Amino acid sequence: MGYELDAGVELSDIGDGAFGADLGAGWKVGGGLNGGYLLAVLGNAVRERLPEKPDVLAISAHYLSATVAGAATVSTRVVRDGGRIGTVAAELDQEGDTRITALVSCGDLASASGEVVTTAEMPTMPSVEDCLPGSLAPEELRRASPLLDRVDIRLDPAHAEWVLGKPSGRGVIQGWFRLADGREPDPLSLLLTVDAFPPVTFDLGLGGWAPTVALSVHLRAVPAPGWLQVRVSTRNVAGGMFEEDAEVWDETGRLVAQSRQLALLPRD
Amino acid sequence: MGYELDAGVELSDIGDGAFGADLGAGWKVGGGLNGGYLLAVLGNAVRERLPEKPDVLAISAHYLSATVAGAATVSTRVVRDGGRIGTVAAELDQEGDTRITALVSCGDLASASGEVVTTAEMPTMPSVEDCLPGSLAPEELRRASPLLDRVDIRLDPAHAEWVLGKPSGRGVIQGWFRLADGREPDPLSLLLTVDAFPPVTFDLGLGGWAPTVALSVHLRAVPAPGWLQVRVSTRNVAGGMFEEDAEVWDETGRLVAQSRQLALLPRD
Repeated sequence: MGYELDAGVELSDIGDGAFGADLGAGWKVGGGLNGGYLLAVLGNAVRERLPEKPDVLAISAHYLSATVAGAATVSTRVVRDGGRIGTVAAELDQEGDTRITALVSCGDLASASGEVVTTAEMPTMPSVEDCLPGSLAPEELRRASPLLDRVDIRLDPAHAEWVLGKPSGRGVIQGWFRLADGREPDPLSLLLTVDAFPPVTFDLGLGGWAPTVALSVHLRAVPAPGWLQVRVSTRNVAGGMFEEDAEVWDETGRLVAQSRQLALLPRD
Repeated sequence: MGYELDAGVELSDIGDGAFGADLGAGWKVGGGLNGGYLLAVLGNAVRERLPEKPDVLAISAHYLSATVAGAATVSTRVVRDGGRIGTVAAELDQEGDTRITALVSCGDLASASGEVVTTAEMPTMPSVEDCLPGSLAPEELRRASPLLDRVDIRLDPAHAEWVLGKPSGRGVIQGWFRLADGREPDPLSLLLTVDAFPPVTFDLGLGGWAPTVALSVHLRAVPAPGWLQVRVSTRNVAGGMFEEDAEVWDETGRLVAQSRQLALLPRD
Protein backbone atom coordinates (compact mmCIF):
# COMPACT_ATOMS: atom_id res chain seq x y z
CA MET A 1 0.00 0.00 0.00
CA GLY A 2 1.54 3.31 -1.05
CA TYR A 3 1.31 6.75 0.48
CA GLU A 4 -0.92 9.50 -0.89
CA LEU A 5 1.92 11.89 -1.73
CA ASP A 6 3.87 9.23 -3.61
CA ALA A 7 0.76 8.35 -5.63
CA GLY A 8 0.09 12.07 -6.15
CA VAL A 9 3.46 12.72 -7.80
CA GLU A 10 3.47 9.62 -10.02
CA LEU A 11 4.49 10.23 -13.62
CA SER A 12 4.53 8.30 -16.88
CA ASP A 13 7.47 8.90 -19.21
CA ILE A 14 6.11 10.03 -22.57
CA GLY A 15 9.49 10.70 -24.18
CA ASP A 16 11.58 13.74 -25.08
CA GLY A 17 11.90 14.69 -21.41
CA ALA A 18 8.13 14.96 -20.95
CA PHE A 19 6.00 13.19 -18.38
CA GLY A 20 2.27 12.69 -18.01
CA ALA A 21 0.68 13.28 -14.60
CA ASP A 22 -2.80 12.75 -13.19
CA LEU A 23 -3.05 15.46 -10.55
CA GLY A 24 -5.18 14.43 -7.60
CA ALA A 25 -8.24 16.44 -6.51
CA GLY A 26 -7.25 15.67 -2.92
CA TRP A 27 -4.53 18.35 -3.12
CA LYS A 28 -6.97 21.17 -3.81
CA VAL A 29 -6.98 24.25 -1.61
CA GLY A 30 -9.25 27.18 -2.44
CA GLY A 31 -9.23 27.93 -6.18
CA GLY A 32 -6.63 25.42 -7.35
CA LEU A 33 -4.20 22.67 -6.42
CA ASN A 34 -1.72 23.48 -3.68
CA GLY A 35 1.46 25.13 -4.99
CA GLY A 36 3.69 23.03 -2.75
CA TYR A 37 2.17 19.76 -3.98
CA LEU A 38 2.85 20.94 -7.55
CA LEU A 39 6.49 21.67 -6.64
CA ALA A 40 6.75 18.05 -5.50
CA VAL A 41 5.34 16.89 -8.87
CA LEU A 42 7.96 19.03 -10.67
CA GLY A 43 10.69 17.82 -8.32
CA ASN A 44 9.78 14.22 -9.05
CA ALA A 45 10.02 14.81 -12.81
CA VAL A 46 13.42 16.44 -12.41
CA ARG A 47 14.64 13.47 -10.38
CA GLU A 48 13.84 11.22 -13.34
CA ARG A 49 16.20 13.32 -15.45
CA LEU A 50 19.11 13.52 -13.00
CA PRO A 51 18.94 10.33 -10.91
CA GLU A 52 22.50 10.78 -9.62
CA LYS A 53 21.53 14.18 -8.16
CA PRO A 54 18.37 13.01 -6.43
CA ASP A 55 17.60 16.03 -4.25
CA VAL A 56 16.32 19.49 -5.07
CA LEU A 57 18.76 22.02 -3.62
CA ALA A 58 16.98 25.12 -4.96
CA ILE A 59 13.74 25.38 -6.92
CA SER A 60 12.29 28.62 -8.29
CA ALA A 61 8.74 28.38 -9.60
CA HIS A 62 6.65 31.10 -11.20
CA TYR A 63 2.91 30.42 -11.14
CA LEU A 64 1.04 31.64 -14.21
CA SER A 65 -2.50 30.32 -13.70
CA ALA A 66 -4.32 28.01 -11.33
CA THR A 67 -3.64 24.28 -11.84
CA VAL A 68 -6.67 22.04 -11.44
CA ALA A 69 -7.14 18.32 -10.81
CA GLY A 70 -6.72 15.98 -13.77
CA ALA A 71 -4.31 15.39 -16.60
CA ALA A 72 -1.17 17.52 -16.94
CA THR A 73 2.14 17.32 -18.73
CA VAL A 74 5.51 18.15 -17.19
CA SER A 75 8.18 19.03 -19.76
CA THR A 76 11.80 19.06 -18.66
CA ARG A 77 15.04 20.21 -20.20
CA VAL A 78 18.46 19.64 -18.65
CA VAL A 79 20.16 23.04 -18.87
CA ARG A 80 23.41 21.87 -17.33
CA ASP A 81 24.60 18.71 -15.64
CA GLY A 82 28.10 18.86 -14.31
CA GLY A 83 30.04 18.61 -11.10
CA ARG A 84 28.00 18.50 -7.91
CA ILE A 85 24.98 20.44 -9.20
CA GLY A 86 22.68 19.97 -12.18
CA THR A 87 20.02 22.42 -13.34
CA VAL A 88 16.78 21.57 -15.10
CA ALA A 89 14.04 23.79 -16.55
CA ALA A 90 10.56 22.33 -16.02
CA GLU A 91 7.11 23.44 -17.07
CA LEU A 92 3.70 22.12 -16.09
CA ASP A 93 1.11 22.41 -18.86
CA GLN A 94 -2.59 21.73 -18.68
CA GLU A 95 -5.29 22.23 -21.27
CA GLY A 96 -2.79 23.88 -23.62
CA ASP A 97 -1.63 26.49 -21.10
CA THR A 98 1.58 26.67 -19.11
CA ARG A 99 0.50 26.77 -15.46
CA ILE A 100 3.92 26.79 -13.82
CA THR A 101 7.42 27.38 -15.11
CA ALA A 102 10.33 26.45 -12.85
CA LEU A 103 14.09 26.14 -12.57
CA VAL A 104 15.50 23.39 -10.40
CA SER A 105 19.09 22.92 -9.23
CA CYS A 106 19.77 19.46 -7.84
CA GLY A 107 22.45 17.62 -5.96
CA ASP A 108 22.85 15.00 -3.27
CA LEU A 109 22.00 16.27 0.21
CA ALA A 110 23.08 13.02 1.88
CA SER A 111 26.65 13.42 0.61
CA ALA A 112 26.94 17.10 1.59
CA SER A 113 29.29 18.33 4.28
CA GLY A 114 27.90 17.73 7.76
CA GLU A 115 29.24 20.96 9.22
CA VAL A 116 26.54 23.39 10.35
CA VAL A 117 26.93 26.98 11.55
CA THR A 118 23.57 28.52 12.29
CA THR A 119 22.02 31.44 14.12
CA ALA A 120 18.52 30.41 13.00
CA GLU A 121 16.46 29.58 16.05
CA MET A 122 13.74 26.98 16.12
CA PRO A 123 10.41 28.52 17.04
CA THR A 124 9.24 27.78 20.56
CA MET A 125 5.78 26.27 20.57
CA PRO A 126 3.65 24.03 22.79
CA SER A 127 3.68 20.25 22.36
CA VAL A 128 1.77 18.71 19.45
CA GLU A 129 -1.05 17.75 21.83
CA ASP A 130 -1.44 21.35 23.02
CA CYS A 131 -1.75 22.81 19.50
CA LEU A 132 -4.87 23.23 17.38
CA PRO A 133 -5.51 20.46 14.82
CA GLY A 134 -6.79 21.26 11.35
CA SER A 135 -9.73 18.96 12.08
CA LEU A 136 -11.18 21.89 14.05
CA ALA A 137 -11.47 23.90 10.79
CA PRO A 138 -15.03 24.67 9.71
CA GLU A 139 -16.74 21.97 7.63
CA GLU A 140 -17.22 24.41 4.73
CA LEU A 141 -13.49 25.24 4.62
CA ARG A 142 -12.55 21.56 4.77
CA ARG A 143 -14.86 20.74 1.85
CA ALA A 144 -13.31 23.48 -0.32
CA SER A 145 -9.79 22.46 0.68
CA PRO A 146 -9.35 18.68 0.79
CA LEU A 147 -5.60 19.32 1.23
CA LEU A 148 -6.51 19.74 4.92
CA ASP A 149 -7.20 15.99 5.08
CA ARG A 150 -3.85 15.03 3.52
CA VAL A 151 -1.74 16.97 6.03
CA ASP A 152 -1.78 16.96 9.81
CA ILE A 153 -1.12 20.53 10.89
CA ARG A 154 -1.23 21.59 14.55
CA LEU A 155 -1.26 25.36 14.94
CA ASP A 156 0.44 27.07 17.86
CA PRO A 157 -2.53 28.75 19.58
CA ALA A 158 -0.38 31.80 20.44
CA HIS A 159 -0.21 32.51 16.68
CA ALA A 160 -3.73 31.43 15.78
CA GLU A 161 -5.90 34.11 17.32
CA TRP A 162 -7.12 34.85 13.79
CA VAL A 163 -9.08 31.59 14.08
CA LEU A 164 -11.24 33.45 16.61
CA GLY A 165 -11.44 36.56 14.44
CA LYS A 166 -8.64 38.33 16.33
CA PRO A 167 -5.63 38.48 13.98
CA SER A 168 -2.54 39.59 15.86
CA GLY A 169 -1.17 41.80 13.08
CA ARG A 170 2.29 40.31 13.61
CA GLY A 171 2.16 38.30 10.38
CA VAL A 172 3.35 35.00 11.88
CA ILE A 173 1.73 31.53 11.84
CA GLN A 174 3.53 28.50 13.20
CA GLY A 175 2.90 24.92 14.15
CA TRP A 176 3.66 21.23 13.69
CA PHE A 177 3.39 19.35 10.41
CA ARG A 178 3.31 15.78 9.22
CA LEU A 179 1.62 13.93 6.41
CA ALA A 180 -1.73 12.57 7.60
CA ASP A 181 -1.09 9.02 6.39
CA GLY A 182 2.14 8.66 8.32
CA ARG A 183 4.54 9.01 5.38
CA GLU A 184 7.83 10.24 6.84
CA PRO A 185 9.33 13.50 5.55
CA ASP A 186 12.00 13.50 2.86
CA PRO A 187 13.37 16.26 0.62
CA LEU A 188 10.51 15.79 -1.87
CA SER A 189 7.79 16.14 0.77
CA LEU A 190 9.42 19.27 2.18
CA LEU A 191 8.44 20.99 -1.08
CA LEU A 192 4.82 20.46 -0.02
CA THR A 193 5.45 21.39 3.61
CA VAL A 194 6.69 24.93 2.90
CA ASP A 195 3.39 25.87 1.22
CA ALA A 196 0.87 23.82 3.21
CA PHE A 197 0.09 26.24 6.04
CA PRO A 198 -2.75 28.79 5.95
CA PRO A 199 -1.78 32.04 4.18
CA VAL A 200 0.15 34.18 6.64
CA THR A 201 -2.15 37.07 5.70
CA PHE A 202 -4.81 35.45 7.93
CA ASP A 203 -2.76 36.77 10.86
CA LEU A 204 -3.04 40.27 9.35
CA GLY A 205 -6.84 40.01 9.14
CA LEU A 206 -6.79 39.52 5.36
CA GLY A 207 -8.87 36.45 4.53
CA GLY A 208 -9.16 34.65 1.22
CA TRP A 209 -6.93 32.90 -1.23
CA ALA A 210 -3.57 34.52 -1.97
CA PRO A 211 -2.30 33.49 -5.42
CA THR A 212 1.44 32.83 -5.54
CA VAL A 213 3.42 34.76 -8.16
CA ALA A 214 6.81 33.17 -7.48
CA LEU A 215 8.05 30.66 -4.90
CA SER A 216 11.63 29.66 -4.23
CA VAL A 217 12.67 26.88 -1.89
CA HIS A 218 16.08 25.87 -0.60
CA LEU A 219 16.36 22.37 0.85
CA ARG A 220 19.18 22.42 3.38
CA ALA A 221 19.29 18.90 4.83
CA VAL A 222 17.61 15.50 4.68
CA PRO A 223 14.91 15.65 7.38
CA ALA A 224 14.84 13.13 10.22
CA PRO A 225 11.67 11.04 10.61
CA GLY A 226 8.92 12.49 12.79
CA TRP A 227 7.12 15.78 13.17
CA LEU A 228 8.34 18.96 11.53
CA GLN A 229 8.07 22.45 12.98
CA VAL A 230 7.14 25.24 10.57
CA ARG A 231 7.18 28.99 11.00
CA VAL A 232 5.57 31.15 8.30
CA SER A 233 5.99 34.92 8.38
CA THR A 234 5.60 38.08 6.35
CA ARG A 235 7.17 41.45 7.00
CA ASN A 236 6.03 43.62 4.13
CA VAL A 237 2.67 44.07 2.43
CA ALA A 238 2.98 46.66 -0.34
CA GLY A 239 1.82 47.30 -3.88
CA GLY A 240 -0.94 44.71 -3.55
CA MET A 241 1.60 41.97 -2.82
CA PHE A 242 3.34 40.40 0.13
CA GLU A 243 6.28 38.10 0.69
CA GLU A 244 5.84 34.94 2.72
CA ASP A 245 8.82 33.14 4.23
CA ALA A 246 8.63 29.62 5.62
CA GLU A 247 11.24 27.78 7.63
CA VAL A 248 11.04 24.08 8.47
CA TRP A 249 12.88 22.28 11.26
CA ASP A 250 13.00 18.54 11.85
CA GLU A 251 12.75 16.68 15.17
CA THR A 252 16.50 16.86 15.71
CA GLY A 253 16.29 20.67 15.61
CA ARG A 254 17.91 20.97 12.19
CA LEU A 255 16.76 23.66 9.76
CA VAL A 256 15.84 21.53 6.73
CA ALA A 257 14.06 23.97 4.37
CA GLN A 258 13.71 27.70 3.76
CA SER A 259 11.26 29.19 1.29
CA ARG A 260 10.16 32.61 0.13
CA GLN A 261 7.22 33.49 -2.05
CA LEU A 262 5.74 36.63 -3.52
CA ALA A 263 1.95 36.45 -3.52
CA LEU A 264 -0.94 38.68 -4.50
CA LEU A 265 -3.10 40.04 -1.71
CA PRO A 266 -6.46 38.31 -1.53
CA ARG A 267 -9.16 40.28 -3.34
CA ASP A 268 -12.44 40.55 -1.47
CA MET B 1 26.81 61.50 -21.50
CA GLY B 2 25.28 58.28 -20.21
CA TYR B 3 25.75 56.42 -16.97
CA GLU B 4 27.93 53.32 -16.63
CA LEU B 5 25.11 50.97 -15.64
CA ASP B 6 22.94 52.04 -18.57
CA ALA B 7 25.85 51.47 -20.96
CA GLY B 8 26.57 48.16 -19.22
CA VAL B 9 23.10 46.74 -19.89
CA GLU B 10 22.82 47.92 -23.50
CA LEU B 11 21.52 45.33 -25.94
CA SER B 12 21.17 44.95 -29.68
CA ASP B 13 18.07 43.17 -30.96
CA ILE B 14 19.19 40.24 -33.10
CA GLY B 15 15.70 38.85 -33.72
CA ASP B 16 13.61 35.90 -32.47
CA GLY B 17 13.62 37.33 -28.94
CA ALA B 18 17.41 37.27 -28.74
CA PHE B 19 19.72 40.16 -27.88
CA GLY B 20 23.43 40.69 -28.19
CA ALA B 21 25.34 42.19 -25.25
CA ASP B 22 28.89 43.36 -24.70
CA LEU B 23 29.45 42.74 -21.01
CA GLY B 24 31.77 45.24 -19.41
CA ALA B 25 34.97 44.20 -17.63
CA GLY B 26 34.24 46.96 -15.12
CA TRP B 27 31.60 44.76 -13.44
CA LYS B 28 34.03 42.00 -12.54
CA VAL B 29 34.31 40.85 -8.96
CA GLY B 30 36.57 37.92 -8.07
CA GLY B 31 36.28 35.11 -10.61
CA GLY B 32 33.53 36.53 -12.84
CA LEU B 33 31.12 39.35 -13.54
CA ASN B 34 28.89 40.39 -10.65
CA GLY B 35 25.67 38.38 -10.46
CA GLY B 36 23.56 41.43 -9.72
CA TYR B 37 24.89 43.29 -12.77
CA LEU B 38 23.96 40.25 -14.87
CA LEU B 39 20.43 40.30 -13.41
CA ALA B 40 20.15 43.89 -14.63
CA VAL B 41 21.24 42.80 -18.12
CA LEU B 42 18.56 40.08 -18.10
CA GLY B 43 15.98 42.50 -16.70
CA ASN B 44 16.74 44.96 -19.49
CA ALA B 45 16.22 42.27 -22.15
CA VAL B 46 12.90 41.28 -20.58
CA ARG B 47 11.76 44.90 -20.59
CA GLU B 48 12.26 44.94 -24.37
CA ARG B 49 9.80 42.07 -24.65
CA LEU B 50 7.10 43.45 -22.31
CA PRO B 51 7.35 47.26 -22.53
CA GLU B 52 3.93 47.74 -20.91
CA LYS B 53 5.10 45.85 -17.84
CA PRO B 54 8.38 47.72 -17.40
CA ASP B 55 9.40 46.56 -13.91
CA VAL B 56 10.71 43.26 -12.64
CA LEU B 57 8.46 42.14 -9.77
CA ALA B 58 10.20 38.82 -9.16
CA ILE B 59 13.27 37.35 -10.84
CA SER B 60 14.70 33.89 -10.14
CA ALA B 61 18.12 33.21 -11.61
CA HIS B 62 20.15 30.01 -11.46
CA TYR B 63 23.86 30.49 -12.12
CA LEU B 64 25.51 27.65 -14.02
CA SER B 65 29.03 28.92 -14.69
CA ALA B 66 30.98 32.14 -14.31
CA THR B 67 30.16 34.85 -16.86
CA VAL B 68 33.14 36.81 -18.14
CA ALA B 69 33.56 40.16 -19.85
CA GLY B 70 32.83 40.31 -23.57
CA ALA B 71 30.19 39.17 -26.02
CA ALA B 72 27.09 37.35 -24.76
CA THR B 73 23.63 36.51 -26.04
CA VAL B 74 20.44 36.87 -24.03
CA SER B 75 17.60 34.70 -25.36
CA THR B 76 14.08 35.43 -24.15
CA ARG B 77 10.74 33.65 -24.44
CA VAL B 78 7.46 35.14 -23.25
CA VAL B 79 5.84 32.33 -21.29
CA ARG B 80 2.66 34.26 -20.47
CA ASP B 81 1.56 37.86 -20.90
CA GLY B 82 -1.83 38.62 -19.45
CA GLY B 83 -3.51 40.77 -16.86
CA ARG B 84 -1.18 42.68 -14.54
CA ILE B 85 1.76 40.27 -14.67
CA GLY B 86 3.80 38.83 -17.53
CA THR B 87 6.41 36.09 -17.24
CA VAL B 88 9.48 35.65 -19.41
CA ALA B 89 12.15 32.93 -19.47
CA ALA B 90 15.61 34.33 -20.20
CA GLU B 91 19.00 32.72 -20.68
CA LEU B 92 22.43 34.25 -20.94
CA ASP B 93 24.80 32.32 -23.20
CA GLN B 94 28.47 32.88 -23.78
CA GLU B 95 30.98 30.87 -25.78
CA GLY B 96 28.33 28.24 -26.48
CA ASP B 97 27.46 27.63 -22.83
CA THR B 98 24.43 28.77 -20.85
CA ARG B 99 25.82 30.81 -17.95
CA ILE B 100 22.54 31.86 -16.32
CA THR B 101 18.96 30.72 -16.73
CA ALA B 102 16.22 32.88 -15.24
CA LEU B 103 12.49 33.40 -14.89
CA VAL B 104 11.19 36.93 -14.65
CA SER B 105 7.69 38.11 -13.70
CA CYS B 106 7.03 41.73 -14.60
CA GLY B 107 4.45 44.40 -13.95
CA ASP B 108 4.21 48.12 -13.32
CA LEU B 109 5.39 49.13 -9.85
CA ALA B 110 4.36 52.77 -10.34
CA SER B 111 0.71 51.79 -10.83
CA ALA B 112 0.59 49.42 -7.85
CA SER B 113 -1.49 50.08 -4.77
CA GLY B 114 0.16 52.58 -2.44
CA GLU B 115 -0.97 50.89 0.76
CA VAL B 116 1.88 49.53 2.87
CA VAL B 117 1.70 47.36 5.99
CA THR B 118 5.14 46.46 7.23
CA THR B 119 6.91 45.16 10.29
CA ALA B 120 10.28 45.23 8.51
CA GLU B 121 12.57 47.64 10.29
CA MET B 122 15.19 49.70 8.57
CA PRO B 123 18.65 48.94 9.95
CA THR B 124 20.09 51.57 12.23
CA MET B 125 23.49 52.71 11.07
CA PRO B 126 25.73 55.77 11.34
CA SER B 127 25.56 58.55 8.75
CA VAL B 128 27.19 58.03 5.35
CA GLU B 129 30.16 60.13 6.48
CA ASP B 130 30.74 57.92 9.51
CA CYS B 131 30.79 54.66 7.54
CA LEU B 132 33.74 52.97 5.82
CA PRO B 133 34.10 53.67 2.08
CA GLY B 134 35.12 50.93 -0.34
CA SER B 135 38.03 53.13 -1.35
CA LEU B 136 39.73 51.90 1.84
CA ALA B 137 39.81 48.36 0.41
CA PRO B 138 43.30 47.00 -0.29
CA GLU B 139 44.73 47.89 -3.70
CA GLU B 140 45.03 44.20 -4.62
CA LEU B 141 41.32 43.57 -3.92
CA ARG B 142 40.29 46.64 -5.91
CA ARG B 143 42.34 45.51 -8.90
CA ALA B 144 40.71 42.06 -8.90
CA SER B 145 37.26 43.56 -8.43
CA PRO B 146 36.73 46.69 -10.53
CA LEU B 147 33.05 46.53 -9.48
CA LEU B 148 34.25 48.37 -6.37
CA ASP B 149 34.87 51.46 -8.50
CA ARG B 150 31.37 51.40 -10.05
CA VAL B 151 29.54 51.37 -6.72
CA ASP B 152 29.89 53.61 -3.70
CA ILE B 153 29.42 51.39 -0.66
CA ARG B 154 29.86 52.71 2.88
CA LEU B 155 30.03 49.90 5.43
CA ASP B 156 28.61 50.31 8.92
CA PRO B 157 31.76 49.89 11.06
CA ALA B 158 29.77 48.01 13.71
CA HIS B 159 29.30 45.22 11.15
CA ALA B 160 32.71 45.45 9.50
CA GLU B 161 35.07 44.16 12.15
CA TRP B 162 36.03 41.44 9.66
CA VAL B 163 37.91 44.17 7.80
CA LEU B 164 40.32 44.11 10.74
CA GLY B 165 40.42 40.32 10.83
CA LYS B 166 37.83 40.09 13.63
CA PRO B 167 34.65 38.67 12.07
CA SER B 168 31.76 38.97 14.50
CA GLY B 169 30.24 35.58 13.68
CA ARG B 170 26.79 37.18 13.52
CA GLY B 171 26.57 36.89 9.72
CA VAL B 172 25.44 40.47 9.08
CA ILE B 173 26.94 43.19 6.85
CA GLN B 174 25.19 46.49 6.29
CA GLY B 175 25.79 49.92 4.88
CA TRP B 176 24.90 52.63 2.40
CA PHE B 177 24.84 52.19 -1.37
CA ARG B 178 24.73 54.36 -4.43
CA LEU B 179 26.13 54.15 -7.93
CA ALA B 180 29.53 55.87 -8.05
CA ASP B 181 28.70 58.03 -11.10
CA GLY B 182 25.61 59.54 -9.48
CA ARG B 183 23.00 57.57 -11.44
CA GLU B 184 19.89 57.53 -9.26
CA PRO B 185 18.36 54.19 -8.23
CA ASP B 186 15.49 52.66 -10.18
CA PRO B 187 14.01 49.14 -10.23
CA LEU B 188 16.66 47.97 -12.73
CA SER B 189 19.59 49.20 -10.65
CA LEU B 190 18.16 47.53 -7.52
CA LEU B 191 18.92 44.20 -9.19
CA LEU B 192 22.59 45.15 -8.95
CA THR B 193 22.29 46.58 -5.45
CA VAL B 194 21.10 43.33 -3.82
CA ASP B 195 24.26 41.49 -4.88
CA ALA B 196 26.88 44.25 -4.70
CA PHE B 197 27.96 43.97 -1.06
CA PRO B 198 30.85 41.80 0.13
CA PRO B 199 29.83 38.15 0.72
CA VAL B 200 28.16 37.92 4.13
CA THR B 201 30.45 34.98 4.90
CA PHE B 202 33.24 37.53 5.50
CA ASP B 203 31.46 38.28 8.81
CA LEU B 204 31.71 34.55 9.64
CA GLY B 205 35.47 34.55 9.01
CA LEU B 206 35.12 32.70 5.71
CA GLY B 207 37.03 34.62 3.05
CA GLY B 208 36.99 34.11 -0.67
CA TRP B 209 34.57 34.10 -3.52
CA ALA B 210 31.17 32.46 -2.87
CA PRO B 211 29.60 31.28 -6.16
CA THR B 212 25.85 31.83 -6.31
CA VAL B 213 23.72 28.78 -7.13
CA ALA B 214 20.35 30.56 -7.25
CA LEU B 215 19.25 34.13 -6.55
CA SER B 216 15.70 35.43 -6.32
CA VAL B 217 14.80 39.09 -6.00
CA HIS B 218 11.48 40.77 -5.28
CA LEU B 219 11.22 44.44 -6.18
CA ARG B 220 8.62 45.98 -3.90
CA ALA B 221 8.52 49.68 -4.80
CA VAL B 222 10.09 52.29 -7.07
CA PRO B 223 13.01 53.68 -5.04
CA ALA B 224 13.25 57.39 -4.26
CA PRO B 225 16.38 59.22 -5.45
CA GLY B 226 19.32 59.27 -3.08
CA TRP B 227 21.26 56.80 -0.98
CA LEU B 228 19.99 53.29 -0.31
CA GLN B 229 20.49 51.34 2.90
CA VAL B 230 21.29 47.65 2.54
CA ARG B 231 21.39 44.87 5.11
CA VAL B 232 22.81 41.49 4.10
CA SER B 233 22.51 38.52 6.43
CA THR B 234 22.80 34.76 6.67
CA ARG B 235 21.39 32.47 9.29
CA ASN B 236 22.34 29.00 8.19
CA VAL B 237 25.57 27.55 6.82
CA ALA B 238 25.10 23.82 6.16
CA GLY B 239 25.99 21.18 3.61
CA GLY B 240 28.70 23.37 2.13
CA MET B 241 26.15 26.09 1.28
CA PHE B 242 24.62 29.16 2.86
CA GLU B 243 21.67 31.41 2.19
CA GLU B 244 22.21 35.17 1.91
CA ASP B 245 19.31 37.58 2.29
CA ALA B 246 19.52 41.23 1.30
CA GLU B 247 17.02 43.98 2.05
CA VAL B 248 17.20 47.43 0.50
CA TRP B 249 15.54 50.60 1.82
CA ASP B 250 15.37 53.96 0.09
CA GLU B 251 15.84 57.41 1.62
CA THR B 252 12.14 57.69 2.49
CA GLY B 253 12.45 54.56 4.64
CA ARG B 254 10.58 52.34 2.21
CA LEU B 255 11.59 48.69 1.76
CA VAL B 256 12.20 48.58 -2.01
CA ALA B 257 13.84 45.19 -2.59
CA GLN B 258 14.24 41.81 -0.91
CA SER B 259 16.52 39.08 -2.20
CA ARG B 260 17.61 35.62 -1.20
CA GLN B 261 20.38 33.53 -2.66
CA LEU B 262 21.83 30.09 -2.11
CA ALA B 263 25.60 30.12 -2.52
CA LEU B 264 28.46 27.68 -2.21
CA LEU B 265 30.88 28.18 0.65
CA PRO B 266 34.19 29.59 -0.51
CA ARG B 267 36.79 26.87 -0.99
CA ASP B 268 40.21 27.64 0.39
